Amino acid sequence: MKNYLKHHEWHIIEEGFDPRVHRISESLFSLGNGRMGQRANFEEHYSGEMHQGSYVAGVYYPDKTRVGWWKNGYPEYFAKVLNAPSWIGIHIAFGKQTLDLAKCKVTGFKRVLDMKQGLLHRVFTATFPDGKKVRVDARRFCSMADGEVGAIRYAITPLNFSGTATITLPVDADVVNKDSNYDEKFWNEVANEAKSGLAIVTAETKKTFFHVTTGMTYAVHTGGKRSKPASVKATKKEKYADNVITVKLGKEQETVVYKYAVVLSSENHAKPKMMAAAKKKLAAASAKGFEKLFAEHAAVWAHKWEECDITIEGDIAAQQGIRFNIFQLTQTYTGEDERLNIGPKGFTGEKYGGSTYWDTEAYCLPFYLGTADQSVARNLLVYRYKHLKRAIENARKLGFTEGAALYPMVTMNGEECHNEWEITFEEIHRNGAIAYAIFDYIRYTGDETYLSDHGLEVLIGISRFWSQRVNWSADKQKYVMLGVTGPNEYENNVNNNWYTNTIAAWTLDYTRYALDYVRKADESKFAKIIAKAKLTDAEPARWKDIIDKMYYPVDKGRGVFLQQDGFLDKELLTVHDLRPQDRPLNQKWSWDRILRSCFIKQADVLQGLYFFEERFDKETIKRNFDFYEPMTVHESSLSPCVHVILACKIGYEEKAYEMYLRTARLDLDDYNNDTEDGCHITSMAGTWVSVIKGFGGMTIHHGQLHFAPHLPKQWNGYSFRLEFRGRVIKVRVTKQGADVILESGEPLTVVVHGREVALRTIR
Amino acid sequence: MKNYLKHHEWHIIEEGFDPRVHRISESLFSLGNGRMGQRANFEEHYSGEMHQGSYVAGVYYPDKTRVGWWKNGYPEYFAKVLNAPSWIGIHIAFGKQTLDLAKCKVTGFKRVLDMKQGLLHRVFTATFPDGKKVRVDARRFCSMADGEVGAIRYAITPLNFSGTATITLPVDADVVNKDSNYDEKFWNEVANEAKSGLAIVTAETKKTFFHVTTGMTYAVHTGGKRSKPASVKATKKEKYADNVITVKLGKEQETVVYKYAVVLSSENHAKPKMMAAAKKKLAAASAKGFEKLFAEHAAVWAHKWEECDITIEGDIAAQQGIRFNIFQLTQTYTGEDERLNIGPKGFTGEKYGGSTYWDTEAYCLPFYLGTADQSVARNLLVYRYKHLKRAIENARKLGFTEGAALYPMVTMNGEECHNEWEITFEEIHRNGAIAYAIFDYIRYTGDETYLSDHGLEVLIGISRFWSQRVNWSADKQKYVMLGVTGPNEYENNVNNNWYTNTIAAWTLDYTRYALDYVRKADESKFAKIIAKAKLTDAEPARWKDIIDKMYYPVDKGRGVFLQQDGFLDKELLTVHDLRPQDRPLNQKWSWDRILRSCFIKQADVLQGLYFFEERFDKETIKRNFDFYEPMTVHESSLSPCVHVILACKIGYEEKAYEMYLRTARLDLDDYNNDTEDGCHITSMAGTWVSVIKGFGGMTIHHGQLHFAPHLPKQWNGYSFRLEFRGRVIKVRVTKQGADVILESGEPLTVVVHGREVALRTIR
Repeated sequence: MKNYLKHHEWHIIEEGFDPRVHRISESLFSLGNGRMGQRANFEEHYSGEMHQGSYVAGVYYPDKTRVGWWKNGYPEYFAKVLNAPSWIGIHIAFGKQTLDLAKCKVTGFKRVLDMKQGLLHRVFTATFPDGKKVRVDARRFCSMADGEVGAIRYAITPLNFSGTATITLPVDADVVNKDSNYDEKFWNEVANEAKSGLAIVTAETKKTFFHVTTGMTYAVHTGGKRSKPASVKATKKEKYADNVITVKLGKEQETVVYKYAVVLSSENHAKPKMMAAAKKKLAAASAKGFEKLFAEHAAVWAHKWEECDITIEGDIAAQQGIRFNIFQLTQTYTGEDERLNIGPKGFTGEKYGGSTYWDTEAYCLPFYLGTADQSVARNLLVYRYKHLKRAIENARKLGFTEGAALYPMVTMNGEECHNEWEITFEEIHRNGAIAYAIFDYIRYTGDETYLSDHGLEVLIGISRFWSQRVNWSADKQKYVMLGVTGPNEYENNVNNNWYTNTIAAWTLDYTRYALDYVRKADESKFAKIIAKAKLTDAEPARWKDIIDKMYYPVDKGRGVFLQQDGFLDKELLTVHDLRPQDRPLNQKWSWDRILRSCFIKQADVLQGLYFFEERFDKETIKRNFDFYEPMTVHESSLSPCVHVILACKIGYEEKAYEMYLRTARLDLDDYNNDTEDGCHITSMAGTWVSVIKGFGGMTIHHGQLHFAPHLPKQWNGYSFRLEFRGRVIKVRVTKQGADVILESGEPLTVVVHGREVALRTIR
Repeated sequence: MKNYLKHHEWHIIEEGFDPRVHRISESLFSLGNGRMGQRANFEEHYSGEMHQGSYVAGVYYPDKTRVGWWKNGYPEYFAKVLNAPSWIGIHIAFGKQTLDLAKCKVTGFKRVLDMKQGLLHRVFTATFPDGKKVRVDARRFCSMADGEVGAIRYAITPLNFSGTATITLPVDADVVNKDSNYDEKFWNEVANEAKSGLAIVTAETKKTFFHVTTGMTYAVHTGGKRSKPASVKATKKEKYADNVITVKLGKEQETVVYKYAVVLSSENHAKPKMMAAAKKKLAAASAKGFEKLFAEHAAVWAHKWEECDITIEGDIAAQQGIRFNIFQLTQTYTGEDERLNIGPKGFTGEKYGGSTYWDTEAYCLPFYLGTADQSVARNLLVYRYKHLKRAIENARKLGFTEGAALYPMVTMNGEECHNEWEITFEEIHRNGAIAYAIFDYIRYTGDETYLSDHGLEVLIGISRFWSQRVNWSADKQKYVMLGVTGPNEYENNVNNNWYTNTIAAWTLDYTRYALDYVRKADESKFAKIIAKAKLTDAEPARWKDIIDKMYYPVDKGRGVFLQQDGFLDKELLTVHDLRPQDRPLNQKWSWDRILRSCFIKQADVLQGLYFFEERFDKETIKRNFDFYEPMTVHESSLSPCVHVILACKIGYEEKAYEMYLRTARLDLDDYNNDTEDGCHITSMAGTWVSVIKGFGGMTIHHGQLHFAPHLPKQWNGYSFRLEFRGRVIKVRVTKQGADVILESGEPLTVVVHGREVALRTIR
């Protein structure tokens, strides 16, 4: 855990340059706008340890799968987030001396991520080996107003000399994926162009043939006025184009280089027209200029913050933490494009390859439901609907038949990209989360039409999968589910994971409800869906039988649900029995030792209690929490939020706050020692959920919004806003109590601490 | 299953050239002599599909491990059998036309493996595109009389022309491992020399720095007399040396090229002296000449066959099958060098990488016990004793302490080379087999001194492992063993595998016995061993507690042992329920489907009944056999032999014979469609065991040899010889009954069908 950042309500601040944390900062200070983004790499050349990373949403590469031993059913490739062409470079040299923070003495270094405005700002003074001193002030943003535009304002001031700077302004598609199985490069050049004032490269991904056109133009200002470089040389080589300009810099005079970039993807443009479109767009951006572009960008951020900000009073670290999470989530996914999803690292790194995990449905959906128009969350569901055919193919590859659908563990385009049998083939509870998300969306929005539009088809596919995946145990006289991996991935290939059995039977039940609902709501649509799916009457009947006779492992003595069959054979220890040198287990223990132990990576039984909390009384939740919580090591970033919510529910306020601290500043404090690979984007949604559903006690019952807010005693107060069925509701909790305010929309009755409260806007 | 070979008592015969089966034949017709060997690649150049493979015992390369997802505890590398420099090439050209069976028309092709004499013999007539016809007669052997020497007699006769042949005689170290993780080449050149009549290359393995010197010389005979080539050109390039000679060939006149090769390994020679030693050895081989070398070689084979032949009367296919297995086993391991072991592919291929699996102890040991001096089997045990330190390190890496030893799943030098968590970390029953081999060796030989010499130390290490690997189940009030993979690898990460629990408790018991025995037999040695191992009194006491309170899963209703906890939750099908298109499961089903099914890859509970048969009555064996046999798919070559033995024991003679057929000609009939990768060497021992312990009913009780022979009704008779405690015993079974004859050694009383029979040699 590294605590090198300054606390501030709206800013992430690093003061002083320490190369040892640079890769962490590259992740934390990342910028994105839903369409593109990049790590906080320096504009100037840097020869120290770093991880160059630029990313374009939806552009991926199917890297050939690497395994030790091939298992039948593994996918041939692993679709990976691609390190994309970079446009941020502004390389400065004085003669043969290059401005390189690994080689210069650096003073007055300050890096600030202004989350309110979405601006990366960096200042420093560099002293060259020969004593030359320059001050740099660099500002960069990826426009939220136009996802294809980025801009940099790079100001340089010689402090103790005058001289000519050679400034190289590249567009570079010759990039390497850090996460590559066979050290291949993934891009080919399609076209490049370099002329005075312009450099553009169109590159194509191998195998997938995505085109990305990256272009840049620039302007130099001296003394506040546009000036002409002393010389301009435009060069290009394979997958690369630049302008090299020379500029006379006066002592103590600020010279500003504005670099404007556009990034176009063939997902949104016709390939033959991309070079021309990029030029047009560059000209427009350049004409508008940095300040105007920035103003438009900052205005979007201001609006976003109005929708989704959470304030915390009396705890700046917590305030900074929650805003950082909201900021990153908002940068990663804007919900405008149903082909996109939320990668586990967003635009902050390339680890974990694919873009979509069950994280989206289980953790991220509530964030977008609560902070944006319902079309955003709906797009996340439609994404899966569009992949239904591939989920059916995926299940067929594993031996399932008749339209059974298994959604992939990891995907870009609907195909499975993961290849570890115990996950790929067995961590099938993910299928349940995709069904649950449909329920969760409708519960929140009331948009039942989604069932007939898309939802029912998906539910039928998933239910068919569960129906084939269970088998009848003659021994138990129950349906059992063998060979699964639950959410707690520290158990593999277990029988009758309680959570998986529970969500499977729930899916069957909800699908039967959905069939009924659509039948009544829209007979012709119903007929079409049934015909398309070739659903027979026998199927829902069998589902009913499975629902009735599903086996759930329990410990009657303790009154708890058992994570899986045989769980009680383990040595039942608690986290307190572990020595510090054993942590984290996944780095210190061999895999078999982890598997044999009782220690839990992330909420498993408790995940089920969270999803289906209305089924369980407080005492049941308490008994299970008391049993499982002490064994949970939270070595997944997705774990603590579920514990916060349940702890709040059962009145364990101290425990809730302890858990909250683990999730709220996970990346800022580099809790798991892996922020250098990128931020844990999807788990950030868990932090948001912790506040709203945990401390705020937000639930929906029968379409009605409930709150049960309490205030952690470490805080003076907090507030959040929710978009809910066309309304904006603000909840403010202070030591004096909770206020629920309808900021806009039709009157509404909510339930606060069990009491109905009628809300109407103050006009 | 391909049935292209002719049946013959002593020969493997392929008639007619079919490139589609060439890779299978390359495996089947392989030659070896315990020190080196090679696949039956052609001497002449061959551009068709083939798998070049030459191997030198004990020479390996640590290939960097390849995994999909790294698990803590995985080894950094995987030691691999190395494709070694090749000496067999005799490349023939007439002008620009190369003799290449992929490009010439081939007639009269016959390939014969003479198992009696260890000779690979091949004749064919090749017609070149321009109509030139040549007849070739090629003979090759790897000397059993001198493991460093090989020789070829290559006779060529132009049938319809006279002309000058260019003959290239290479030594080629520029070889590629087919089984390489990152397509690297594994050899560097140390020295090479080429001069008239000689070519030598010394190559060094990367990382492991083994040196192998491969040299060749040759002689040309025309009309039965030595002749001088018309020209000789000696060339060398990196990792390669040759002589290119031109020879005038007369029409219908046989010209013979004798090629003599030596292969020296730095395991047996000082590196700086290897080039000189090779030259000396080459000169001696050449002086001796092909016929004399072959006579010496054939004499060793004659002696070997006297020790280990099994005759089968009235079934030539079975006779050929059993001899093929004995031939390959004898070629693979001669027992002279305790640093060597029995690779799963011997010298016939490189698949499965390492050399030593539990196959050695569980399947091969009885073969070498029965067919060779007891020192051979003892060397196999000493091999493991020498690896004890590394087995302790291996266990420590996985979190075990205080001298607990876990022998690797796959190894070359004692270090683990396998990397699949469910095998590497969990298939720990292998440790039991290593303990069992000590017991098995002593039971057969009576050599109890082995316990104090080496055995007890190994047993203590293994017992300590078991003692730490079990845990107390408060729920069951028993010791349990969680997270294991049994011999049936179609189950992974199961709890309480009956076989593993059984062999673990047995090990503890046998170790306690061994402690007692050594204490009484040799007090000072005992004291030394205890001091070295730092064994406390508490340890054997805990072992006793574990023995007493070990949990064994059973199905009381059926009266069978359960393969593992939860086995009865499966859908209990039989092999007859499978469709032909489902077989083999490991190629047709996804891994999770295999794991969830009841189908059994290889004997598991039944393996335990075989190992510990004296503990179980026939009815128990029968009940378990009746339960598990119908679920067993025998997709491991190590499976059927155990079923043969048990079936014989319970009087299932038809089943025994059916199973025997699957093991006896597994490779000859390419039963599993994978012989092209090499032969299943270790499973061949299972065939031998099937005859001796199955049909012959051989067991040892209290040091006494028992037989319960029966004759499969498909046969007229069979016979085998056993080496037993300094004696040679021959058993001959015919329709008239069984004769047990003492061929040499001191008088002995054996038990045949329950009746004591006193044996003495007839003088």
